[in-house]
Amino acid sequence: MSDTIHRPIRGVLAPVLTPFEDDERIALDLYVDFASGLLANGCAGLVPFGTTGEAQSAGVRERLGALEALVESGIDPRQLLPGTGLCNFAETLELTSAAERLGCRGALVLPPFYYKGVSEDGLYAWFARLAESVRREDFGIYLYHIPQVAGVGVPVGVARRLAADFPGRVAGAKDSSGDWDNTVALLEVEGFSVYPGNEMRLADSLALGAPGCITASANLNASAIAQIVSLHDRGEDTDSDMARVRAWREALQEYAPIPGMKRILADRTGDGRWAYVRPPLQAMDSDRGSALQVRLDGLA
Amino acid sequence: MSDTIHRPIRGVLAPVLTPFEDDERIALDLYVDFASGLLANGCAGLVPFGTTGEAQSAGVRERLGALEALVESGIDPRQLLPGTGLCNFAETLELTSAAERLGCRGALVLPPFYYKGVSEDGLYAWFARLAESVRREDFGIYLYHIPQVAGVGVPVGVARRLAADFPGRVAGAKDSSGDWDNTVALLEVEGFSVYPGNEMRLADSLALGAPGCITASANLNASAIAQIVSLHDRGEDTDSDMARVRAWREALQEYAPIPGMKRILADRTGDGRWAYVRPPLQAMDSDRGSALQVRLDGLA
Repeated sequence: MSDTIHRPIRGVLAPVLTPFEDDERIALDLYVDFASGLLANGCAGLVPFGTTGEAQSAGVRERLGALEALVESGIDPRQLLPGTGLCNFAETLELTSAAERLGCRGALVLPPFYYKGVSEDGLYAWFARLAESVRREDFGIYLYHIPQVAGVGVPVGVARRLAADFPGRVAGAKDSSGDWDNTVALLEVEGFSVYPGNEMRLADSLALGAPGCITASANLNASAIAQIVSLHDRGEDTDSDMARVRAWREALQEYAPIPGMKRILADRTGDGRWAYVRPPLQAMDSDRGSALQVRLDGLA
Repeated sequence: MSDTIHRPIRGVLAPVLTPFEDDERIALDLYVDFASGLLANGCAGLVPFGTTGEAQSAGVRERLGALEALVESGIDPRQLLPGTGLCNFAETLELTSAAERLGCRGALVLPPFYYKGVSEDGLYAWFARLAESVRREDFGIYLYHIPQVAGVGVPVGVARRLAADFPGRVAGAKDSSGDWDNTVALLEVEGFSVYPGNEMRLADSLALGAPGCITASANLNASAIAQIVSLHDRGEDTDSDMARVRAWREALQEYAPIPGMKRILADRTGDGRWAYVRPPLQAMDSDRGSALQVRLDGLA
């Protein structure tokens, strides 16, 4: 059933938006339907509970429940790379072990992000301990580098040591820093599969060996982004398609992407639950959501 | 038994260091003994699970268990102001409700600290929802402002709105920013009890109405700091005592305070468990611990 070595998911992965009920439980019916729809419409894989999925705004038990709901719905767990990183190791291990047990392809793991300015040795020790806990040969740990949000990044030097000491086990990284030099440095780490955290330089990344990208935009624009991967794989020109997806992303970035995409989904589906976000984020009002939709429509 | 309105703890509060077993469970016997000793030697209260207590490096269940152990040991829960803030609301509420149920004086609550640059309205909504959940009239919520570590602070404007809308319920703040102007602005919020996060300007703070301070130093130097409060309350001069505790704190700050104080306790008690810290922090070696001890001894 499973490979004996880890292979990265190739293509576009969506950090799935997480819909909530009005009492703030996760709206599991909506979540599962939306996730299935993404896989049917351009996404090669899903990252439940990334930054876009308001992961840190959910408790451990509800994250476990939502992940189980995805797998029980019939989604192939090998298409799932859930976010599992928290500030504390015990619960990070609990979430990561659950992902492994459920058959997921791997896990995307933030560094512990409360204490700032921590040593590279301290970060290495954290990830090494997690890597040692994994049993399945085909389960890959991906380092999640998003220093501008988490406040703590995963330095390339730490990635290099982990890749060397845990080949195939610490399988790669998601680089959401927006720092292209850093992405290139990670792509040069031997045996590492690196997903840029958006589509702005997807074609360049594919040319350097990236398996794809993990991008918030894929919640609404997956097929257009997936087309870049198809064109690249057929050796065809990607310039005009890249220009289109870049313009789309830039427009999204002018708004608050998480409340914005949720508001658009609420208006598009008529299901008002989509508009909810958890504090400290704030929902987007309809007028601003409509303005964002008009802006995106003008680029379609 | 309990007052009908909240009153702040007056004096020095220690954010208690958390000792671990070599398998990383919390060393509950050591924790309870140490906490009792602090209360017997200068501390008027304790803040279990603050930044110094490696709170974010512990899971929710072990935090609950350790708090229960303190209360079951016979420590008066009215002397406890545990840290309960996490990035997600559900578990923050779970920890805060447990503190309330156990009879604690209140809780010290971080803002949700994953997303950066969030709106004041979003932060207000988070704390307001927590304040609305509290049932005990004498239970106070304290806002924990430590932006240089958490990456997200509690702006004075948010504190002012919460103090006005939840008088006595949102009872005050701990200001660990080290920004004296900010501390003064918080002290001016009507009905607010503000603890500076160290002892560097304790006498000035007391003069402006602070009930005391919450300081990492109190894990080793509580009686000297408590003496400042006694002198102040008797109207006596604090200058020479303030100079001594300031010099002590400045020496501690030259080292990594959490691993440093733990190493000193390991050497002083002969219980090597004290030396452990959880990743991403790293233990201090004996040589450096000895150097810190010599430095502090020279100031005694």
